[in-house]
Amino acid sequence: MNVRFYDARVLTVSGGVRVEDNKELWVSGNRIVYVGDGNDADRDKYKWDREMNLNGDLLMPGFVNAHTHSGMTFLRSNADDLPLQRWLNEQVFPFEAKLTGEDIYWCTLLACLEYLTSGTTSICEMYLNPIFTAKATETFGMRCVQCPAINNFSQPVSEMLEWYEKLNSGSPLTSFRLGIHAEYTCSKELIEEMAEISHQKKAPVYLHCCETALEVEECKERYNGLSPVQILDELGLFDYGATLFHGVHVTEKDMEIMKDKKLSVIINSSSNVKLASGIAPVKTYLEKGIDLGIGTDGPASNNCLDMFKEMFLTSALEKVKNMDASAVDSLEVLKMATAGGAKAIGLEDCGDIREGMLADLIVIDMKAPNMRPINNIAKNLVYSGSKSNVKLTMIDGEILYENGEFRLKKDCPSVDEIYEKVQAVIDRMR
Amino acid sequence: MNVRFYDARVLTVSGGVRVEDNKELWVSGNRIVYVGDGNDADRDKYKWDREMNLNGDLLMPGFVNAHTHSGMTFLRSNADDLPLQRWLNEQVFPFEAKLTGEDIYWCTLLACLEYLTSGTTSICEMYLNPIFTAKATETFGMRCVQCPAINNFSQPVSEMLEWYEKLNSGSPLTSFRLGIHAEYTCSKELIEEMAEISHQKKAPVYLHCCETALEVEECKERYNGLSPVQILDELGLFDYGATLFHGVHVTEKDMEIMKDKKLSVIINSSSNVKLASGIAPVKTYLEKGIDLGIGTDGPASNNCLDMFKEMFLTSALEKVKNMDASAVDSLEVLKMATAGGAKAIGLEDCGDIREGMLADLIVIDMKAPNMRPINNIAKNLVYSGSKSNVKLTMIDGEILYENGEFRLKKDCPSVDEIYEKVQAVIDRMR
Repeated sequence: MNVRFYDARVLTVSGGVRVEDNKELWVSGNRIVYVGDGNDADRDKYKWDREMNLNGDLLMPGFVNAHTHSGMTFLRSNADDLPLQRWLNEQVFPFEAKLTGEDIYWCTLLACLEYLTSGTTSICEMYLNPIFTAKATETFGMRCVQCPAINNFSQPVSEMLEWYEKLNSGSPLTSFRLGIHAEYTCSKELIEEMAEISHQKKAPVYLHCCETALEVEECKERYNGLSPVQILDELGLFDYGATLFHGVHVTEKDMEIMKDKKLSVIINSSSNVKLASGIAPVKTYLEKGIDLGIGTDGPASNNCLDMFKEMFLTSALEKVKNMDASAVDSLEVLKMATAGGAKAIGLEDCGDIREGMLADLIVIDMKAPNMRPINNIAKNLVYSGSKSNVKLTMIDGEILYENGEFRLKKDCPSVDEIYEKVQAVIDRMR
Repeated sequence: MNVRFYDARVLTVSGGVRVEDNKELWVSGNRIVYVGDGNDADRDKYKWDREMNLNGDLLMPGFVNAHTHSGMTFLRSNADDLPLQRWLNEQVFPFEAKLTGEDIYWCTLLACLEYLTSGTTSICEMYLNPIFTAKATETFGMRCVQCPAINNFSQPVSEMLEWYEKLNSGSPLTSFRLGIHAEYTCSKELIEEMAEISHQKKAPVYLHCCETALEVEECKERYNGLSPVQILDELGLFDYGATLFHGVHVTEKDMEIMKDKKLSVIINSSSNVKLASGIAPVKTYLEKGIDLGIGTDGPASNNCLDMFKEMFLTSALEKVKNMDASAVDSLEVLKMATAGGAKAIGLEDCGDIREGMLADLIVIDMKAPNMRPINNIAKNLVYSGSKSNVKLTMIDGEILYENGEFRLKKDCPSVDEIYEKVQAVIDRMR
């Protein structure tokens, strides 16, 4: 597909968030091939499938949801307002034990529909069966970076190595990283084994880390006072980098290691407040220059997959925690939700709008009341923006959502079928 | 208009939040005249203007935004990420000083558009010129309870008394209550005068109260250690009740007074976190049985007017503050956002769905991905719901928003004109 957008506002992120008026943007195949004012460009160079006058609507990079568990949609709002341990032990684990690969396929498709409506164009996924997750995201056309949840009880390392080969050599939409579930679910030996594999592959490791105070406390008991970040570093897990999901309860010393080893942290504000885990020190991370992205976490805890909600919270929670209304500038948050997340999950050609980048982009309706008047468009996205403003979502050059309608790929099941199948998953378990 | 909705899910609030399937709901004029399964009802009794098959979509009471400053839309995202005092002194007050009544009319219309998109059917408004606010809300068809912001510098009491007479005897959509801006902007004499008027009219007073720690501290210095709640009570301001906006920094003793005098508190979570004011003790308020509503506060601080966002925050912030994921059940929050707010601002016939109530209601699209699968619909509204799910907004029996389109009243200016006029307001001031 060749698509020409014109009379567009364009928001770019790298080198400082900026919005420019009256721009043209061209997509050919799955890449952005031109961004400019159009005067210097040869419009006849391409045969256009679509030419879209945006009338001042905003083109921006799609959101990078850098930590999620898409397959958990079946548990959305199945059990809320419970203490964390009861929720996990009574309402999550027993249900997940009954989940099949096929279930994960359907549940992931449902999540993908939701990503489109809220302008998310790539995700970093960790769930029970990467093969069925990939089947869903590839069928759907979602860009998906996966990592396994290696732990003492499931997902053996041998299986991970098979996934690593298979999922890094198939669809260009899919990639697979090394990963462990978390320090507290892996033995020292298993962590050492994973560190060894990371050394062999010269590849970073993805993991939950420092999500709750209890997790950190128990780790210190296990390892003579060392925090998860300290012991994992000591065991060599971070020698080729790592991306840490959550990073709520960390020390100054942890942050030094993060900085030193060029680790990234993914902030999951909704999940962390709703499950009463805490508020991540985003202000300090930024001051220390640690790379940050934003994730929704899974829909069982959040309960939705909405990066607008996450952006507001990421800024506002730090303001109230620090009792400083100037803490965590919203433009930093916008960067985290796009280019920052892309960097953290290794998607080099995503997260910004620039010639040569992958065409993962969204159009924001500037004629909605919450976008008016036009003052600071970029800050307004963070503080007033909503998924209701997402007018179009394009992934890898394909328009999959437009004006409230899904435009699913030919081989993708219908919306109604996805709804029915996911309903059947949870109904069967009750 | 006579409207028949059928095959609807219906959510009711009073006596415990409940969702029932396969219901009929009839509206005649501005009232709900029937809710039931339809078998006992005589459908020929009315000549239907519309008969709408909701196919399982959810009918629920419209949200009551119990504290807002609609006229501030011109300042939306004009200045964010600033310390509170700089924001107020450099970015709010100098701009407001230039605002005309006509400006307020247009800015309020813009807010009303946004209320429709997010399912808000009534508001409690405090701003600079109640006459122009009422002109806007009446032209628009928005149910509006107003209170003045009496203070030492503007809005003399004599003028308030004129507004009181005029705005309580005109459109049934409009009502006017007694109000002061806050303790810290009123002299003791002025507060005593307002208490006297409250006694004469046997009417409650509306006011900002205990929003910031500084406000409470300065009050204690002024009044020998008495908090705002204590001194205002001592001066007789609460003898006929009161509705307090914010209520973030309160003591046990304050709460006793609130309970004793049957005061209501309106929670404004987004504004309180974004301006770093703090987190209101919602859990404790609920435990003590104090009446609560929810407001967005004004769009200069929030920056949007979205009750879904407020509902999530009202529950989630208390969970993280108390480090207890079971704190503040989402069903309580749903009640606060509807019937609770209606009670707090004196709208007896609003905030629930029941025969005889005013027809202020909304339809929620149950076919959106964030509403699936169907587990706990009511909790899902709080944790996963979004204004993108609002399919229809009816105020006083009139459908003003449907399927993403505004259906404005004949005499209401067009959406484009509202956008242009509000843009001109802020552009003129720059």
